[in-house]
Amino acid sequence: MTAAQPAGPQGRFITLEGGEGAGKSTQVALLADALRSAGNPVVATREPGGTEGAEAIRALLMHAPDHGWSAVSEVLLHYAARREHLDKVVLPALSRGTWVVCDRFADSTMAYQGYGLGCDRQMISALHQLVIGPFRPDLTLVLDVEPGQGQARTASRGQPSDRYERLDSTFHARVRAGFLAIAGAEPERCVVVAASGTVADVAQRIRRIVADRLRIGLGAP
Amino acid sequence: MTAAQPAGPQGRFITLEGGEGAGKSTQVALLADALRSAGNPVVATREPGGTEGAEAIRALLMHAPDHGWSAVSEVLLHYAARREHLDKVVLPALSRGTWVVCDRFADSTMAYQGYGLGCDRQMISALHQLVIGPFRPDLTLVLDVEPGQGQARTASRGQPSDRYERLDSTFHARVRAGFLAIAGAEPERCVVVAASGTVADVAQRIRRIVADRLRIGLGAP
Repeated sequence: MTAAQPAGPQGRFITLEGGEGAGKSTQVALLADALRSAGNPVVATREPGGTEGAEAIRALLMHAPDHGWSAVSEVLLHYAARREHLDKVVLPALSRGTWVVCDRFADSTMAYQGYGLGCDRQMISALHQLVIGPFRPDLTLVLDVEPGQGQARTASRGQPSDRYERLDSTFHARVRAGFLAIAGAEPERCVVVAASGTVADVAQRIRRIVADRLRIGLGAP
Repeated sequence: MTAAQPAGPQGRFITLEGGEGAGKSTQVALLADALRSAGNPVVATREPGGTEGAEAIRALLMHAPDHGWSAVSEVLLHYAARREHLDKVVLPALSRGTWVVCDRFADSTMAYQGYGLGCDRQMISALHQLVIGPFRPDLTLVLDVEPGQGQARTASRGQPSDRYERLDSTFHARVRAGFLAIAGAEPERCVVVAASGTVADVAQRIRRIVADRLRIGLGAP
């Protein structure tokens, strides 16, 4: 019942993780373009979301009820959306040989709900094992920004900030520390990427890491 | 992190379970009235639902996306709503000494998603343990109707039928068998109540069982 690694021709699953304003969605699009230019079919997607049902769950999460979600309920909603997305988008794409580049995955639940909001991290790990099983990304890029810098970026977009963006700086510091702890514990899967400099600088760093880790050719854009 | 049994003065938690058209919501209201008449403060509630957030999850479940929910996602959504409802309604009421009468609880997830839709029952049990822990209803009344009779009742209401009501008779037979199996496995918690006869007949059967099992006085309405 867990999400089994599909048999047959395999695409690769790359996730981009990090706090607010790290530039993940821009870098997901640029990395997908670079992979396509190198001849790989690519699906660029995001969590929570990526299917009709999972986007509806995303809307519930972003517009929490008046008293907020219970922490455990919030984690369960993320995993409901994740399993939906895996079953209907990610695993079918990988099994037909398509690469998947995803803006956030399970590490975000551990960093935000576990490290940031203080939900029991062992419970989150046990839930992950129950719902997802041993399936993991082939490569996870953790975009790391200095505290304050990411929030300044999100503010400069002028979009209405969502509920996470409105949380205080100590929350964002815990989330950042969480991502760094996760990356440190799984160095064979995760690479921390400095998100400082221009968009092109960060895109080039990412292309180099992907080419090196996954042993493929990726030219300049 | 599981839902701990609250300390202090205790209300009792009574759940009504059963398939479509068993008359649960009517009987929940009548039982709540009888308990109030006997001097007990009562909250009558339902699952999935009972809080603003859990009702929003209920709407997602009732209006599934075009291709339906993945079975595991559906179970996770039910447990997200359940934990929300427990944390914000059921446990606070019990801890202040209020009785809670609830239209559906965890047995419905096992009967509908496990027995009915074929979702891995061990996974559902493990998730229950992870999210809810050892907390259980003090008494569960399983309203049992003959196959076909329940569906005839829901059809006679003239309301638009929801997605479960539209499923075929073999599905409803599996759900019924599931409820009977659950009740058979936990006789100290569950009592099967024949839902045949008039509303008043069923209400009287329920009052007698509640009075007997929970050792309280409950007169005729």
